[in-house]
Amino acid sequence: RISWISDIIVVVSSENIETMKTIIEKYGHKRVTVVEGGITRHRSIFNGLKVFAEDEFSSHLVQKPEVVIIHDAVRPFVEEDIVSRVVMAAKEHGAAGAIRPLVSTVIASAADGCLDHSLERARYRASEMPQAFLFDIIYEAYQQCTDYDLDYGTECLHLALKYCKTNAKLIEGTADLWKVTYKRDLYAAESIIKDNLSQQVCVITNVKETLAQVGFLLPESLKSQIKVEAISVSLSKNDSCLQNIISGQCYNFVCVNDERWAIQETQELVEMLEKSNIPLLCPVVLILVNLDISENNSFSIGMEDLTMIKKFARETKKKNILVYGLLIQYK
Amino acid sequence: RISWISDIIVVVSSENIETMKTIIEKYGHKRVTVVEGGITRHRSIFNGLKVFAEDEFSSHLVQKPEVVIIHDAVRPFVEEDIVSRVVMAAKEHGAAGAIRPLVSTVIASAADGCLDHSLERARYRASEMPQAFLFDIIYEAYQQCTDYDLDYGTECLHLALKYCKTNAKLIEGTADLWKVTYKRDLYAAESIIKDNLSQQVCVITNVKETLAQVGFLLPESLKSQIKVEAISVSLSKNDSCLQNIISGQCYNFVCVNDERWAIQETQELVEMLEKSNIPLLCPVVLILVNLDISENNSFSIGMEDLTMIKKFARETKKKNILVYGLLIQYK
Repeated sequence: RISWISDIIVVVSSENIETMKTIIEKYGHKRVTVVEGGITRHRSIFNGLKVFAEDEFSSHLVQKPEVVIIHDAVRPFVEEDIVSRVVMAAKEHGAAGAIRPLVSTVIASAADGCLDHSLERARYRASEMPQAFLFDIIYEAYQQCTDYDLDYGTECLHLALKYCKTNAKLIEGTADLWKVTYKRDLYAAESIIKDNLSQQVCVITNVKETLAQVGFLLPESLKSQIKVEAISVSLSKNDSCLQNIISGQCYNFVCVNDERWAIQETQELVEMLEKSNIPLLCPVVLILVNLDISENNSFSIGMEDLTMIKKFARETKKKNILVYGLLIQYK
Repeated sequence: RISWISDIIVVVSSENIETMKTIIEKYGHKRVTVVEGGITRHRSIFNGLKVFAEDEFSSHLVQKPEVVIIHDAVRPFVEEDIVSRVVMAAKEHGAAGAIRPLVSTVIASAADGCLDHSLERARYRASEMPQAFLFDIIYEAYQQCTDYDLDYGTECLHLALKYCKTNAKLIEGTADLWKVTYKRDLYAAESIIKDNLSQQVCVITNVKETLAQVGFLLPESLKSQIKVEAISVSLSKNDSCLQNIISGQCYNFVCVNDERWAIQETQELVEMLEKSNIPLLCPVVLILVNLDISENNSFSIGMEDLTMIKKFARETKKKNILVYGLLIQYK
């Protein structure tokens, strides 16, 4: 997803290595090396770093990077922007990590299970991921750290500070960097994915000039009202651009046409969507806009047209594709 | 909801006082006094406590309690058990509060935005709500604390420690005590509510002995497999017990009968549910069990019966009530 990342090391427990390899193959992920994890967080990270430094892995031909990013799989909503900022800060400071404000006050308990003291919330931050390091710094830190660190430590920034005297730069991250930890977090994650899906719309127009203009104005207008990623393409069989959009998991389509409900063309789009298996995951919304600019248009829509589009919509609904019709007339 | 709580003080910002009073009236909440909040968390809590202690509020006739519980409205999933444990601990220790393990490492930043030091995660806890105090201790603490505390402090346990030398007892809370903070948390909260709804089932049988026995064995059997709250009642018009169950927002019903798909009786239940408006919020599941113990039963079900129950189910589906039929035959 991020083109300037040269290699990706995925650290997985031994029992999940085969599953992970299957996933990588299925989705055609490149640049990925799978490594067996250790029994603690730090031991797993260390195993991952060794790929770049130790002879036993040299067959992989992965080159030692200047900067290495460390991230958790339980934080799936990481944006390229925060990754980039953390990497640039690491290049300058040797180490950097994303932080978030504390949601609750942090307290220290005494041996008797009573409050010892509480921390002033404003002075502290939650340390999140991604973090980035100059490779030589973090690798040096892992080589020097004790078994106690490897078994009980949780914080890479701490190791860089303790063993390499590197004070990491702290970068304010987004709320979506939270750890998917509890069952409820899966529902929260689902809601974020669905929210994101609704932020992208593909506008399809045929090539006539007036329609192309509408196809241009519509996304512009949408952009000013909601956050949309609008793409204007023409609908034609085997259009590679449209194929790319569909395989990029677009769930919202607006088809602008001047022929009354261009069902046949739309049918082709429905078939492409069906083949992609996208509608199985989440309903696809398809809005057919009939732009009637003929001189002799009338403000009534014939029963025949209505029946046809309703029938078409009923059929596609079974495929989890929701079709809506919109008639725009102007003289 | 918790019978042993004598008074509830709801602290609300001035612009929301009327809305809150409307809610309290609409849902018939008793024991509630609404108080205007301050500009910070601590000032709001102090306003709430004053109801029990100051003359200006004496018209409310709320008696000073031995123990006061402080809770956030953004933590809606608090169970009676944790409230009870916090209260008992407060009675013994003077103060007590719920805690949770830290999900992320906590760090302190230096003035230059770089890492100063990180805290050992295992030694610290997140301080959550509910908290409870001997009233005299927390009120004394609020009376003595400074304007700086009232404006910038966030932790009641800290005030009790600082001004009354009371080390609060810390009680491990459940994961559901998290603060509903971000938009995604609303989806997470929704998922928890729906999970809870699926944990309650109402089993309805008619009065014949064999069926009553099934009505008893079924919930017993369900209890051993999943967490169910099973209630056995007989279905009759204007049954106040059934009315109570419906108004208690039960979404799952099992009707056991020996007449083939007792549609008419079920229709009455559907009407009761419709009147309650419950199906608008979430689909209601209605399982019709036809227990056929007649000597001459056969293992085939007539087309007529099938058509009838399918038609009935199709009708109720429009009302967001999902009807399933189950035929059990034994000789």
